This record gives sequence, C-alpha cells and structure tokens, in this order.
Amino acid sequence: MSIQSAIAELSLVLGDRLSSAKPDLELHGQSETHFTTMPPDAVAYPENTDEVSKIVRICAAQDCPVIGWGAGTSLEGHTSAFRGGVCVDFSRMNKVLVVNAEDMDVVVQPGITREDLNTDLRATGLFFPVDPGANASIGGMAATRASGTTAVRYGTMRDNVRALEVVLADGRIIRTGSRARKSSAGYDLTSLFVGSEGTLGLITELTLKLQGQPEAVASAICAFDAIEDAVNTVITTIQMGIPMARIEFVDSATATAFNIYAGANMPEVPHLLVEFHGSDTSASEDARRFGEIVDDMGGKGFEWSTKAEDRRALWAMRHNAYYACLALRRGATALVTDICVPISRLAEAIEETRADITNSSIPGPILGHVGDGNFHAILLVEPGNTKELEVAKDLSHRMAERALRLGGTITGEHGVGMGKLDYMQAEHGDGWAVMGDIKRSLDPKNIMNPGKVLKLN
Amino acid sequence: MSIQSAIAELSLVLGDRLSSAKPDLELHGQSETHFTTMPPDAVAYPENTDEVSKIVRICAAQDCPVIGWGAGTSLEGHTSAFRGGVCVDFSRMNKVLVVNAEDMDVVVQPGITREDLNTDLRATGLFFPVDPGANASIGGMAATRASGTTAVRYGTMRDNVRALEVVLADGRIIRTGSRARKSSAGYDLTSLFVGSEGTLGLITELTLKLQGQPEAVASAICAFDAIEDAVNTVITTIQMGIPMARIEFVDSATATAFNIYAGANMPEVPHLLVEFHGSDTSASEDARRFGEIVDDMGGKGFEWSTKAEDRRALWAMRHNAYYACLALRRGATALVTDICVPISRLAEAIEETRADITNSSIPGPILGHVGDGNFHAILLVEPGNTKELEVAKDLSHRMAERALRLGGTITGEHGVGMGKLDYMQAEHGDGWAVMGDIKRSLDPKNIMNPGKVLKLN
Ligand SMILES: Cc1cc2nc3c(=O)[nH]c(=O)nc-3n(C[C@H](O)[C@H](O)[C@H](O)COP(=O)(O)OP(=O)(O)OC[C@H]3O[C@@H](n4cnc5c(N)ncnc54)[C@H](O)[C@@H]3O)c2cc1C
Ligand SMILES: Cc1cc2nc3c(=O)[nH]c(=O)nc-3n(C[C@H](O)[C@H](O)[C@H](O)COP(=O)(O)OP(=O)(O)OC[C@H]3O[C@@H](n4cnc5c(N)ncnc54)[C@H](O)[C@@H]3O)c2cc1C
Repeated sequence: MSIQSAIAELSLVLGDRLSSAKPDLELHGQSETHFTTMPPDAVAYPENTDEVSKIVRICAAQDCPVIGWGAGTSLEGHTSAFRGGVCVDFSRMNKVLVVNAEDMDVVVQPGITREDLNTDLRATGLFFPVDPGANASIGGMAATRASGTTAVRYGTMRDNVRALEVVLADGRIIRTGSRARKSSAGYDLTSLFVGSEGTLGLITELTLKLQGQPEAVASAICAFDAIEDAVNTVITTIQMGIPMARIEFVDSATATAFNIYAGANMPEVPHLLVEFHGSDTSASEDARRFGEIVDDMGGKGFEWSTKAEDRRALWAMRHNAYYACLALRRGATALVTDICVPISRLAEAIEETRADITNSSIPGPILGHVGDGNFHAILLVEPGNTKELEVAKDLSHRMAERALRLGGTITGEHGVGMGKLDYMQAEHGDGWAVMGDIKRSLDPKNIMNPGKVLKLN
Repeated sequence: MSIQSAIAELSLVLGDRLSSAKPDLELHGQSETHFTTMPPDAVAYPENTDEVSKIVRICAAQDCPVIGWGAGTSLEGHTSAFRGGVCVDFSRMNKVLVVNAEDMDVVVQPGITREDLNTDLRATGLFFPVDPGANASIGGMAATRASGTTAVRYGTMRDNVRALEVVLADGRIIRTGSRARKSSAGYDLTSLFVGSEGTLGLITELTLKLQGQPEAVASAICAFDAIEDAVNTVITTIQMGIPMARIEFVDSATATAFNIYAGANMPEVPHLLVEFHGSDTSASEDARRFGEIVDDMGGKGFEWSTKAEDRRALWAMRHNAYYACLALRRGATALVTDICVPISRLAEAIEETRADITNSSIPGPILGHVGDGNFHAILLVEPGNTKELEVAKDLSHRMAERALRLGGTITGEHGVGMGKLDYMQAEHGDGWAVMGDIKRSLDPKNIMNPGKVLKLN
C-alpha cells in the first residue's frame, strides 16, 4: 500500500488527466496566506462523479490521502497536502446541470465558480447570493461553509444548499437532502457535509437555493468618528427590521489602504458600506430610514446611489480589500483572522483588537461583515520573518480567546483548515471529540484531507 | 444489567421525581395517532442538566433505554417506549434563562412550550416564530426539526436554533454552536442534533433566534375552484418575492370539517389562508398585490383584515384542523401523512393524492403548508379495524413513493419516529447507512430512543 501505487493505478483510469508536473503540484500545494507550500503527489482532474468514486476507491485501498480542490482561495491552509497524496481538482466538473426556475433552485457541479454561475443564471432573473468576494468554487464554498458580504440578508452556505451528492471515503456515492424546501427525514447529512472541509467526503453535485434579482438596488458609504458609532448603527438597523443586503465595516487603516490601492478619497476613519435590495419603493425607503439612523449616530457623508457603476466600483473596492491591505506593506504575506461574536459585543471586540494590534510591532487593518458580528484583521508579516509570524500568531490567539470570552466563535466563515486547529478544543470541548468520532466512523482510515478540522492519530 | 436496576439507582437520585405510577406510564406511552400504547418502565422529572447527565450515565451503565419527552404531541410514535426503559420528561426544565434583546436571541430550557415562551417574550417586542400549531415543547420541536405555518417566512427549527447543550449517550455534556450568528468552526453539530429525535442525545438547553414583532399583520382567506389554481397562486406569489408569513392550503373535505367543527361558513372547495407581516404600508401593499394574483387565478372571496380577533379566529380554526378532521368520523383515529415536494410538483402531488383517497374506502382530508410544498392527508380509520389501517398504510405508502418520484421527501416536518421507518431506505439509500454509522459512533449501546429513525440490531 502506497501513494505511488495509487498514482500508478489512477493514471490507468485518468490518463493525462492525472498530472505529476511540478508546476501543477506547486500550484495545488500553495496557500493564499502565510502557510508554506505542501504539494500533493499528483493532481487528478475528474470529469464526472463515477470517476471521483473510482479515484477515492483506489486511494482508499492504498491508504493514500485525497484532497479536494475548488479554486484554491481558502485562507487556512485547507488544501495543503500535509501528508502528500492526490489532489482532486474539480475544475472540469463545472457545469450547471438544471435550473428549476419555478422552484428557485439550481443543480450544479462543484467546480463552477460563483461568478460563472451567476453569469449563467442572468437570463433567468434569478441569482445565487452567497458572495465571499473571491471567485471561489461552489464546492469549495460549501466545504468551508463560506459566507461573505450578503450573509446578513441571504444567509451562509449552510442556508443555501438544499441537497448534495457526496462521494464517501470508501467510494460509495450518496445523496443528501432533496429538492423539497424542508425535511424531517432523519439526520441532516447536508449540514454535516457543508463545512466539513473535504474531511468526510467529496462533494460532486449541489442543489442550491436561488433568489429573485431585486428590482432595485441602492448602495452607500458613510464615515464615523468611532467604531462604536458604526456598530451601533448596525445594531439599530437590525432591530428596526430594515433588511440590509450587505453591511460592511472597514477601519481607518483599511480606508488608508483603499485610498492608496483603489485611488479612493476616503477620510481615514471607520466606515460602513451598505446595500439594499427590494422594489423601487422599498429599497429607497430602506435607504432613507437607514440614513436617519446614520444621522442619529453622527455618521457623515451618507449619500445613496442606485447607479450600477457606483455600486460596482464600491464592491470591487471592497472585494479587493485583502489585496489592498497586503499592498500596504510591500511583499508582505498575511495571517488572516476571522472571529464572529454576538453583535452586542462587536464594538468591544473590534476596539480591543484594534488596540492590541496598535500596540504590536506589525500592521493589521480590520474589516468585516458586521451585520453578522464577523470581522477580520489582516495581520501583515514579512515572509520568512518568524518573529513577526509569532507576533501575528499571538494577536490571533488573543482574538480567538476574545471571541470565546464574548460568546462567539474562532472562525465565522473561513473555516479551520490547519490554521485554527489550536483553538478547536477551547471552542468545543468534548464537542470536538464528537466531531472526531464522526470522522472516524465515516473515514476510518483518515484519508480524506487529513490534518484539517481535527487532530487525529 | 437491567432496566430494574437502573430504576432502583435512579430513585435514589430523583426521589419522588421518578414515577412508576401506572397512569403516568400510560400517559407517556401513548401517541396522538394510531400507534398502540407502549409505556416506559418509569418516568423521570429532572430539574437541571446535571440530573439529566446522571440519569443517562446510570441508564448507560445498565443498558436501559432513555426516551426524551417534551409535550408528547409528535405524530409518528416518537416517544413510544418500544423496548421499555426510562422516559425523561422535561416539564420541570421549562424556564427562559436569558433574553438577549440586542442580539435577538433567547436561551431556554427544553421543556418550555412555544406558547409559554411567546407569552414570556411579549414585553420585549420579540417573538419566536416557529409554530407547529400544537403547543409543543421547544426541545421536542428541535428534536423533530418541526416547522408549521410560519416556516415559509421564518424557516424551520433548523434555521432558528443557534446553539444547544446536549447530554450525550454516555452522560457527557457538550455545547454545540454559540451565540454568534454564524460559524465555520468544524462540523455543524447543532444541525446534527436538530432532527435527531432524541436518538443521539438529550437536549438540555437551546439558544434560539428571535424576530421583531411585526408592526402590522394582515390575514385573509380565499376560495378556489381547483387545487391547481390555489397552488399556482402560491407559486406566483413566491416568484414575485411577496413575503408571506403564512400560506396554508385546505381542501374541500377540510372546509367541510371546519364548517362542522368550528361553525365556519366556507364553500366546500379548496382554500388558501394567508398572513402578511410588515410595516403598515408593506403589509397592506403585500396583501393588495396578493389579492391581484388571487383575482388572476380566479380565486374568490379574498378580503383581508388587520383585526386581531379575525386573525385569532382564523388561526385557531387552522390550528384545530387536526381535531376538526378527526371529528368528521366519530371515534376515529388517524394516520397522518406529511410529504413535501418541490413546489412546481405540488399541484400534481395533491391532486393524485386526492384522487387516490377518493377511490379508497376511508376518508382523508388534505391540508398543508403549501408555501413549503408540504401537505398532510389525515387518514381516518376506525380504531382496531386492521383492514382500514391497511388501507391507510397503502395510501400513505403511495404518498411516500409519490413524494420521492417528484423529487421530495417522505416527511416534511413530523419526522420519522416509528411510522416512517419503512421509507427511509428508499429516500436515502446508503445515506441511511451513514446515519446508522453516526448513531453507532455516538450511541454504541443504542440506548437513546431505540427503534426511531433507524433500524439497528
Ligand atoms: C480575497 C479573498 C477574500 C475572501 N473573502 C471571503 C469571505 O468574505 N467569506 C468567506 O467565507 N471566505 C472568504 N475567502 C475565503 C475563500 O474564498 C473561501 O474559503 C472559499 O469558500 C474557498 O473556496 P475554493 O473553491 O477556493 O476552495 P478551495 O480553497 O479550493 O478549498 C477549500 C476547502 O474545501 C475543500 N473542497 C474544495 N472542493 C471540494 C469538494 N468538491 N468536495 C469536498 N471538499 C472540497 C478543500 O479540500 C478545502 O478543504 C476569501 C478569500 C480570498 C482570497
Ligand atoms: C394537532 C397537531 C398539529 C401539529 N402540527 C404540526 C405542524 O404543523 N408542524 C410540525 O412540525 N409538527 C406538527 N405537529 C407535531 C408535533 O407538534 C411536533 O412533532 C412537535 O415538534 C413535537 O414536540 P413535543 O414537545 O410534543 O415532542 P414529543 O412528542 O414529546 O417528542 C418528540 C420527539 O422528540 C424527542 N424529544 C423531546 N424532547 C427532547 C429533548 N429535550 N431532547 C432530545 N429529544 C427530545 C422525543 O424523544 C421524541 O422523539 C402537530 C401535532 C399535533 C397534535
């Protein structure tokens, strides 16, 4: 039993769709963030579920790790082949299989990116709302339980996946859920696989909920003197039941980054970026009521726009925030944090974090999906500078502790991967052991993305 | 090792809060529907989580079944002590522990009923929306993944539970989820326990999402010539994005039942009962737009009301529909079906079911939560008449097949219990085996509500 025998067998099945070319291995072993590259031994490019099942069967027989790969945009070393093995790249399984307009759902293969999916859907009047900024694959988004700017209105991947087809660790193919809107027929396997980061099986098909394209979209940006004022604006808006489609926070350091990277002209103070979806009447009514709250909280410069260009520029700037922050420090790499707390504790969480970073030796702009209580610090370190990496890890560690102390979670949306393993015990206690029990029962050989989510041995 | 030794030990812990009185055993062994009574050997009334943990530890050591009990309103023989054992009645764990108004969440014990919870919340301006009609316990509702009339707007228990405290099959206490609005920190254990029907552990605390009480509520009822027209009205309303808070279907037989039982004065044809929540402007605007769709579909008698009395009368009638249907046939007991299909197939599903029942020898009114594609036939049988029960089971069997053929599920909200076990293989295939693997890993002795959800041996 060996990885090499698995690869030999796989090449008979996949021919030149199994690659061991060095650049391919490197590409699939690197990470968007600070993790060192850990390449797999081969990359497989399956074209259908049966092939995926064959791949997993062969790997299972040879005790060879299997690592799913969507678009490689995850941030916690999720796809690092830390014990080697075969990376299953889903880029050739990227089709829309069926659009059911009456039921407002769509069946897709996992490799399709969210941008391609929405381009495909354009003519139907429907769209898939989950938007992590990066052009991630739908399979990868399900595997990390991703969310992003629109979760405050439309929910996360947890809320937007109806059904899955999954290849299990022994190669069996199962279907979880159905196209029905709800079910009480036994354990919720769909929710179990969503967020399991490829450690329980490979997702080969997804049925997703869709939304009707809003008749009107209004967006705006406004500035605040203090973090607390911005957060209180969010809390009041939620309590008044004004349905925001997006509400994003950026701190003064991020505003600086936008000014430099995107040529923005923002005062270097905390900001909120918002969007409303609805009918012409309701979107403008929502924006008007929101404007009143901003006024009450001392916010400035609130001016809403329904022009598509303005909106596109605003969200392009936000979606590139990570790169704008990276550019603040030439050549830097990042440790990205991702805590999420009850919204009543959010101002406190951000302010403490801001102060902690300011007192440290490294820069770290803060930005986040404040409608969910979720924010990130982009801790900028010099590549190879272990002292700085330690500083960043300490800051990250204190953020995790802060999140738990305030009743929250160590990762709101990025997932555990390898980067957040050390906080799982603190967050879940014996619950983490239960996750281990489940993993062992579904993947007794620990071949599915080993080393992520759990520490097994 | 025996049930009797467990009971002896338990009585030392619980004193007179462990009951073996016959009426108590009978009460906890009976079912709302056609299942024969299967009493437990004792009923425990714990007052806190530690006691629940002690109970489970003792039962685990003695291999004694443990059956959770909330309000006993479930419909599939969920609480039947089919191998005897100890029923854990949560009625003394019925407190609201904390209301977090800013975060719009509440922490409760499992035994509180949804009506008591909402009474308690009244002064806060918040409410808990999930409404199965019956005054079920929150713990039981989570355990069955209940929904009901408001799921079309607010989701099911799956969508409304943020976090749980659970006593596992070995007595360990874990917490799943947190008060944060989202998380990607590992497997979604909250979703695993929601809907697990007490087969993986006992829920001892729940953190629930709350909603703001709407400023305005408008309700209405309208009649249709054909089932299809009613369903098309629903589909169009959803596609236009008009946010219904409730949309209920009743067929002509149910209308007859309402006329007799509730003194209604309804034409004996299919009806829709609807409700809108919003601001004064939006609720009336929604009702107006809905009225136009009803007109287009040939619906009649649509007249909306914002009066609380009218609304209360309407929903009291709907909530008592089960008893109104039972009363159609003196002394009858019911087999209640609960299929859910993609909404595009709903008219077909209801019409085929209507025809099948009409051709049978027993009555069976149909009603349902049509916004979700979910409906029930209340199949009325004479108690003890095995031939009629067979007819009902055949009808139910064909409904399950129909649901699966149309891409749906055999139970939209009532759960599996003992009543829907025979269709689990057809719905889930190897997925059912995966559920069995999970069960074995978390409850290796199969003491938690044995005989429900799974067939193990
Ligand atoms: C600039 C930037 C901004 C970002 N913003 C956000 C944000 O706002 N919100 C957010 O949630 N995330 C964000 N992310 C993180 C990232 O986009 C998400 O984690 C995304 O879900 C990863 O998808 P992917 O297709 O790139 O997955 P990959 O990185 O390829 O894989 C992620 C994980 O999923 C597994 N996987 C992939 N495909 C499958 C499959 N078919 N079956 C089983 N397992 C599979 C992999 O093994 C791995 O464990 C951001 C990333 C970047 C670079
Ligand atoms: C008239 C009528 C109308 C109904 N309408 C609906 C409807 O519209 N929608 C709907 O979804 N249901 C409906 N139901 C069914 C029923 O109300 C639900 O199934 C409800 O969720 C059961 O809650 P309960 O507290 O009565 O639970 P019980 O019947 O006491 O128990 C149900 C299951 O949960 C388990 N359980 C209970 N408490 C716990 C706990 N704390 N921890 C672990 N397991 C536990 C039990 O072991 C059992 O398996 C209706 C029932 C009636 C009688």
